[in-house]
Amino acid sequence: MTDRLILPLPGSEAFAERLAIAGGFELGRLESRRFPDGERYLRIHADPRGRPVDILCSNADEQFLTLAFTADAVRDLGASEVTLVAPYLGYMRQDARFRPGEAVTSRTFARLVSVIVDQLVTVDPHLHRFAALGELYDIPCTVLRSAPLIGDWIGRETPAPLIIGPDAESEQWAAEIAARAGAPCVVLAKRRIGDREVEITLPDLGMHTGRQPVLVDDIASSGRTLVAASEALRKRGFAAPLCVVVHAVFAGQAFADVSAASARTVSTDTLSHPSNAIPVAPLIAEALANLPRSGRKP
Amino acid sequence: MTDRLILPLPGSEAFAERLAIAGGFELGRLESRRFPDGERYLRIHADPRGRPVDILCSNADEQFLTLAFTADAVRDLGASEVTLVAPYLGYMRQDARFRPGEAVTSRTFARLVSVIVDQLVTVDPHLHRFAALGELYDIPCTVLRSAPLIGDWIGRETPAPLIIGPDAESEQWAAEIAARAGAPCVVLAKRRIGDREVEITLPDLGMHTGRQPVLVDDIASSGRTLVAASEALRKRGFAAPLCVVVHAVFAGQAFADVSAASARTVSTDTLSHPSNAIPVAPLIAEALANLPRSGRKP
Repeated sequence: MTDRLILPLPGSEAFAERLAIAGGFELGRLESRRFPDGERYLRIHADPRGRPVDILCSNADEQFLTLAFTADAVRDLGASEVTLVAPYLGYMRQDARFRPGEAVTSRTFARLVSVIVDQLVTVDPHLHRFAALGELYDIPCTVLRSAPLIGDWIGRETPAPLIIGPDAESEQWAAEIAARAGAPCVVLAKRRIGDREVEITLPDLGMHTGRQPVLVDDIASSGRTLVAASEALRKRGFAAPLCVVVHAVFAGQAFADVSAASARTVSTDTLSHPSNAIPVAPLIAEALANLPRSGRKP
Repeated sequence: MTDRLILPLPGSEAFAERLAIAGGFELGRLESRRFPDGERYLRIHADPRGRPVDILCSNADEQFLTLAFTADAVRDLGASEVTLVAPYLGYMRQDARFRPGEAVTSRTFARLVSVIVDQLVTVDPHLHRFAALGELYDIPCTVLRSAPLIGDWIGRETPAPLIIGPDAESEQWAAEIAARAGAPCVVLAKRRIGDREVEITLPDLGMHTGRQPVLVDDIASSGRTLVAASEALRKRGFAAPLCVVVHAVFAGQAFADVSAASARTVSTDTLSHPSNAIPVAPLIAEALANLPRSGRKP
């Protein structure tokens, strides 16, 4: 039995309910509306006194002030600790100044989140130039890894799979998925041309003929990598691949494009999307139940 | 000659240009777009090195992260001091917990703004339970008053005006406007019923018969006060009033309703609106030119 209170921001209600059920946590409700000038009005329907409160919010861009207001309110109302649970953690993209004058948004976002909440729990953040969230965030961060869930899912759903990671950086991650799925593993050579175009080079796949290719990636946003890789595989005589991604961003036409190029496209439910097939709520629930009550760093 | 750099957030470009012209300041440009997952990309086109930078943003709700990213970026790029110029300052409404569980948004908003910028300059903030911005903000705040501009405008535009303030709280403010306009002044008795309905009681106006009533208010959002007061004045045989407000929020049908009930409705340009007639850029430009370079409180 735990005394944690789960409080979803607008848009995260369905995930929060799955999380509350998975962990046996109480599910609170946030009432929200707007004043005539656009200001947000928020009211918490639950009693946070003396309890750890977990605020659920994926992709906190539009909800950023709502997150801040909710965190302060539950602390005011007596919460012992406030944790941001962001199944998908945004603002990991702009991690350096590539051209003069650019804002390094990942640093500012992390600094503000660290001012607002006491802890952060997320799934597979898109770390690139930073080796760990601790280089950005001043609060304890718990990073959960979906690779075992994805590997088990592929092992259950696909006979004779071949796991294909998107680039050299993803090699260890893809190998872990492959090991869980009992499958061989290769990675693509990928060259990014602008925000939306990529050039893919396949390795030698001669020894894997006849296997079902499974493209895995941490984020699908434009979907260009998955589409380009699918086309390259077809040219080599492989069946249309299965695509499995952690974070289903799928902007604009991306999901239609990837679906057309693949046999099936599935994702975890860190972002709510029609492709969701691999639930991460049990993973997060277990982590929350065992979270150290560390509080703010002094 | 001053070395200030004016940098408008999206939506504040026109005001920023008027401000730059009024003060002889350089006007910078902020490039902004979105990544496929909705994250904001920002790039500053100007050189902030060694200079005070004034970020222009009215009603920072949707622009809150943009404000934070821009402030951090200009500081990173060498700005000597970062000032938020918010001609209209939002989040002054929810200044207490009226019902259990409510978020006191004004406190959280002020705390975050105080983390982000070094100084704040605004016009007539909607102070109610707080006597001064210093009770909310941890940074130096410069509060500019539009009453002289409004009084002068009424004096120029209206023969024989009668200035009418919306409630007892506004008495001093309305009296200052009246003194500048060379006019007598009264205030209404106002009782608020919910978010949008108000009940108005007129004082004895027998001695002001024949004068042009001028209703003044700091914010017009639903417009109910102005409409109700206009109707009450008509019943006493007065001409349709002139309505003059500082902050033209005018949600939904409000401007159409107030326009129908009044002879003319005008506002200052703290929020961009068709009713804008009284520019505050010269007032802000003068304040910026004389701003103490105090920096962050230790």
